[in-house]
Order: sequence, then C-alpha cells, then structure tokens
Amino acid sequence: MRAAVYGVGTTMFGKQPDKGGPELARQAVYEALADAGVDSVDAVFAGTVFGAPGTAQRALQTVGITEVPIVTIENACASGTTAFHEACSAVASGRYGRVLALGIETMTLHFTGPILPEATDADGRQGMAMPSIYAMSAARYQAEHGVTDEQLALVSVKNHRHGTANPRAQHAGELTVEQILGSRMIADPLTLLQCCAISDAAAAAVVGPERGVSRDVPVRATVLRSGKLWDHRTPHVWGYDIVRDTAAAAYEQAGIGPSDVDVLEVHDAFTIGEIVTTEALGLAPLGGGAELCQSGHTWLGGRQPVNPSGGLLSRGHPLGATGLAQLAEIVWQLRGDAGGRQVEGARLGLVETMGGGTAGVDGNGCVVAILGG
Amino acid sequence: MRAAVYGVGTTMFGKQPDKGGPELARQAVYEALADAGVDSVDAVFAGTVFGAPGTAQRALQTVGITEVPIVTIENACASGTTAFHEACSAVASGRYGRVLALGIETMTLHFTGPILPEATDADGRQGMAMPSIYAMSAARYQAEHGVTDEQLALVSVKNHRHGTANPRAQHAGELTVEQILGSRMIADPLTLLQCCAISDAAAAAVVGPERGVSRDVPVRATVLRSGKLWDHRTPHVWGYDIVRDTAAAAYEQAGIGPSDVDVLEVHDAFTIGEIVTTEALGLAPLGGGAELCQSGHTWLGGRQPVNPSGGLLSRGHPLGATGLAQLAEIVWQLRGDAGGRQVEGARLGLVETMGGGTAGVDGNGCVVAILGG
Repeated sequence: MRAAVYGVGTTMFGKQPDKGGPELARQAVYEALADAGVDSVDAVFAGTVFGAPGTAQRALQTVGITEVPIVTIENACASGTTAFHEACSAVASGRYGRVLALGIETMTLHFTGPILPEATDADGRQGMAMPSIYAMSAARYQAEHGVTDEQLALVSVKNHRHGTANPRAQHAGELTVEQILGSRMIADPLTLLQCCAISDAAAAAVVGPERGVSRDVPVRATVLRSGKLWDHRTPHVWGYDIVRDTAAAAYEQAGIGPSDVDVLEVHDAFTIGEIVTTEALGLAPLGGGAELCQSGHTWLGGRQPVNPSGGLLSRGHPLGATGLAQLAEIVWQLRGDAGGRQVEGARLGLVETMGGGTAGVDGNGCVVAILGG
Repeated sequence: MRAAVYGVGTTMFGKQPDKGGPELARQAVYEALADAGVDSVDAVFAGTVFGAPGTAQRALQTVGITEVPIVTIENACASGTTAFHEACSAVASGRYGRVLALGIETMTLHFTGPILPEATDADGRQGMAMPSIYAMSAARYQAEHGVTDEQLALVSVKNHRHGTANPRAQHAGELTVEQILGSRMIADPLTLLQCCAISDAAAAAVVGPERGVSRDVPVRATVLRSGKLWDHRTPHVWGYDIVRDTAAAAYEQAGIGPSDVDVLEVHDAFTIGEIVTTEALGLAPLGGGAELCQSGHTWLGGRQPVNPSGGLLSRGHPLGATGLAQLAEIVWQLRGDAGGRQVEGARLGLVETMGGGTAGVDGNGCVVAILGG
C-alpha cells in the first residue's frame, strides 16, 4: 500500500530558547494535524539529536496523543527524515494506519557544541568538529575539480536569496559573494556565511495510506542507508557515496531518474555539501555541482531549483527537525502552496538528508524521499 | 510471519569508563552474532538514552555491518526493549529478514545526572528526580495497601541474591533486610540499596523469521504503548496503568494469561517498581505485590521467579541496554542456559520495561514481550 502525506506543519526557525522542545513540537504537530484534517494517529516516530528524553511525549499529551506507540529516533542530521522513513514504511507495510512523523531540536537549550566525534575515534582525538570535516572535503574537492572559493560562496548567495521568500527562515537576505567570502573564516575554505546556523524548531507530517484526496502528496519512495567504510584515500569525498547509493535505490523505487525531479530540498549544512550532494543525486556529473548553481539550473526559476526554502544555510538547521522541514517544503511545493518561492508546475520533489559519519564510515545515515506524481 | 530470537549477547555490567560505547556495543554484537551463527543482518535498531550520536554506527563498522539501515531509538528506560519491538515488528511484517536489536549505555561517560524532568514541566520545576518520583509512588502505595518498609526491602534482598548466580551482575550479594533499610536514605522510603546503580553496558539480540532451529526462541508477542494522561489524583500509582494495559495487549497477542508465564524480567529500577509491576502484570491483585515476594512466589525456586538475573537492582541499569539485557536473560532461561540461576522447565518468559513519564503522562513508554512456548 502506498503512503501519502496528509498534512505538514513547522514552527518558525531560529534561536527561541524561551520555547522548550515540547512547545515547539506542539506547534508543529498542531499545524500538521489541522493541515491533514485529522485529530488522532496510530503511532508516532519523532526525530531529535540532542532533545531531552520524553520531549515528544510531553508535546503529544498537549494535543491529546497518548497511549499509542511513540518511538524517538536519533540518526544525526537525518533524524527527522529517518522518522519520516519509519512512518512511511509502517504505513506501506500496513503496520499502522495514520502515523505522525515529528522532528524537534532545541539547540540553544540542549546543545553545547561544537559537534565533536567521540574522543575514542581518530577524528575525535584530532579535535575535528563538523565544520573541519566539511572543510577538508571542500579543500580536497577544490583541488580535484578546480572549483573556486567564489563558486562555493555562490551556493550560499542562492540559498539566502531563496530564503527571502520564506517567512519562517532564520537568516535570509540578499548577500553577495564578496560578503560571504568576507565573513569570518570558520574552517578554510568555509566562511561563517557558508555554514548553517544553530537553530530551534520543530516540524511534523501526518502520513497515511493513499485515500484519493487530491491535496495529499503520494510518497513514491523513501530509502534509508548507512555509510560504507570510508577514509581519505577513498575515491570520492566524504558523503558522496552514501548519497549516491541511497538516491539510486530511491530512484529505482520511484521508477524515475534524476532529470524527472522538479524541485529538491537537500542537505546544505555547508556550501560544499550542496555541491557534492547535487552530484551524488545525479543532477550533474562528478565535479559539475558548482556549475549547476552558476548556470542558474538550481535557482528558483531554473530547471531544477534546489533548496527553494533557503535550505539549511538560510532556513536554519535544527538538527532533528531539518528532515521534516525539508519534507514540509516539498509538500507545499507539490501542492502549489509555496507562495513567493513556488516552483511553477512542480510535480515531483525530492528530499535528501545526510547525517553524521566521521569515524570511518561514509555517513551514519542518509534518507532520500521522492514525492508527488 | 512469527519472529524468533536467533542469538543474544551482553557485556559485563558495571562502571567501565575505560570502554566507550562503541567498544561495549561491539562486544555485545559480536557475542549475539556468534550465538545466532550469522555474520550479517539486514537492518539494525539500537536503543540508547544518553549515548553519543553515531555510537551504533561506530560499533557496527568494527563487525562489518555497514550500509544497512541503522536506526537509533530513545524511549527512556524502555529504549532497548523498544529497539527489540521495532526489530520484531519489522521481521513479522516481512519488512526485513534478519535484524539486530542493540542496547547501549555508558552512563559514567555520558550521564551527568540526576535524571531530571525538564524545567518546563511541573515536576521539573519542583526539582523531582527519578528517585523522588518513585519514592512518592512508594509512600502512596504504602499508605493505600499497608505495605511495610521491610516488605519493600525484601525485593532488594531477593534480587541481590539472584544476582549472586549471575557472573555479569554489577552488585550482587547476600544482603539482609536490615542492611538494605540501614543503607543511606535516598528518597524516603527508598534507601540506597533499593535503587538501581549507574551502569555501563551493552546487550544485543539477532531476530529473524522462525526457521525451525530448536535453539531459537519464538517471540509470541511484543507490544509498545505510551502512557495515558496521569496526575496524582488518578486511581493507581504512577506506572501501574501503562504496564497493565501493555501487558493485557501482549497476553492477548500471545494467547496466554499471567499464570502461564514461567519466568519474568521486569523493571525494578526501585523496589517499589517491581511490586507495582508484578501487580500490573497480573501476577497478584492490586496491593498483593509485596506478598508475592514474601511468600517466595517470585524467588528462584518459586512458582514464577521474577528477575532471576538480579534485575536492575543487582545486574545494574544501563538505561538503553537494560531491555536487551532482560531479553537475553529470558532467552538463556528458555534455552536452559542460565546456569546457577536456571528456572527449571521454563517454557514461557516475559520481559517488561517501563520508561520515563513524569510530566503528566503515566510512562513515556512500556514494552512487554512474551517469548517461548
């Protein structure tokens, strides 16, 4: 049985330490239930990375969701999308009828950063935080493919501009390549404005079996994989293989190819992330990801807009909430509800989130979901 | 299709900060794979409460388990059993073939305790840690049912004695009621030796479809529920209703009643917990839980031994690992592999874990599993 998204909801994105996780989750769930036109679900899968135990249960009791199975999931940055994947799989197998997928993160309350690998791991011992790991990918990628700092920065220009049409985005604006390259250096070559921000937010989706309601968005595929063994001598930069393999399985499940996708939300935690990801998703050949942005292909108005919401760079990256925020954007796009950032005639959308993976594996987890059609 | 447990494994239980979560998990997984006679699985569900993101992935790469879906689950003290439930459900629905369920907790490394509800919750604002919440249950229970401090303490005498036959237990010994009541007061009426200890450990199980191997242990039922709304004016003490309702569904799924069960591992995080839980599981009427222990019914050699492993009080309570440690004990018991703590002729076993639930809900989650037969 094929799953469909009945409704979605999100909070605002940004630093909002005055609101706890339960309150943010309540807002997102309330909006998703109302959007779906339902007031109960059979089970809940909630994604969070650093959230306090019981956050989902505390939120759900306030909207009357108790007694049902509630499973909280951690899968690094892919936590929210993993919750969505589990929800869709449960519906598809007939295990549950209607399922709520929820993502919650309150980084200003529960995150003392930087995100460091464990001291027991080689990269943890070296003191490498996530920006350093992405920076090493960027440096290697630039060396291998001749991509310039300006080309990296352009991804951030695009996503911050996209964010200006998203009233819920955390950091939106008309930035120039010069402004982005002139911002504080975080980990060479990645400057501050090429790194996603600390954020608090929640996002939710109600999923159920297809029910013949035109507003519902069919789930064509969801695939979850973890990474292969990886080290710096591996042919591709970190994160490429896991996204490529997950996407390949998702395209096969959906019966489509990369060129069929009209709009994408992908994991641009850092500018280099979007470039490598768009290649791994098959939008461009190896080394061609920067050109996708430079040519306008991935801008709103282009052939395949990537991160019309502003992405992680502009909307913000509340870890466990991100996957469901991406999903909400794609649902709005496919319904034609995306306002000033609407991709005209969008029929098929793709969500990709890649999480963690710094101690010898090429990603802790990656989820690719394909919706619509 | 019915699931069966092919193999189980655990580490030692205790404070072992020299070993990180990945190393403990590796030990448990290695033993479970060897016990199952397999070297690969199709998916992994890992339970942990405070473990670092990616702990499961770091462990699994060392035994060659990569690329498959890996989902880490938090469900308070029921995290490990929830992972087991998800694994069994995935097998039963045909979603996956062979699945690994894993529980990991490194409390000495990742837990700064006490476990406090969030400050945004009423009980969090009141500064109530888990011992205080159980202590209030105990005080109310004593007032309602005339149970004495000595009767509470006897549960701890039993479980510490059971633990003397478990070479992996953290704190085992021949203790007297006087010693237990004479230990430091933690939260009246609960003294130190009535509270489970901070522990580091991992435990694992390989689950798959029944395959006609006599050593495999069939899974007759697994049920996961979250709590109803609860406050102190509710008819039963905190935790009773969720366990009763989860157990009722599990008994129905298994087609058995409470008296059919030969051996049980239940959530005795505090002495009062075992008393209330054995009632909620239907072994005794309301108010009769203390008598079950006093009469010898729940001792090794009695009619329905409870916590032959020593339980949380003696084996230890590494939060996310506990559920799979309980499961491993029941598997060993049903196979006749439990050595000096073997329940003779055990044919049907039950695992119960109840987690969290302090902010208006009667438990964040409870899992009851019934095995064997």
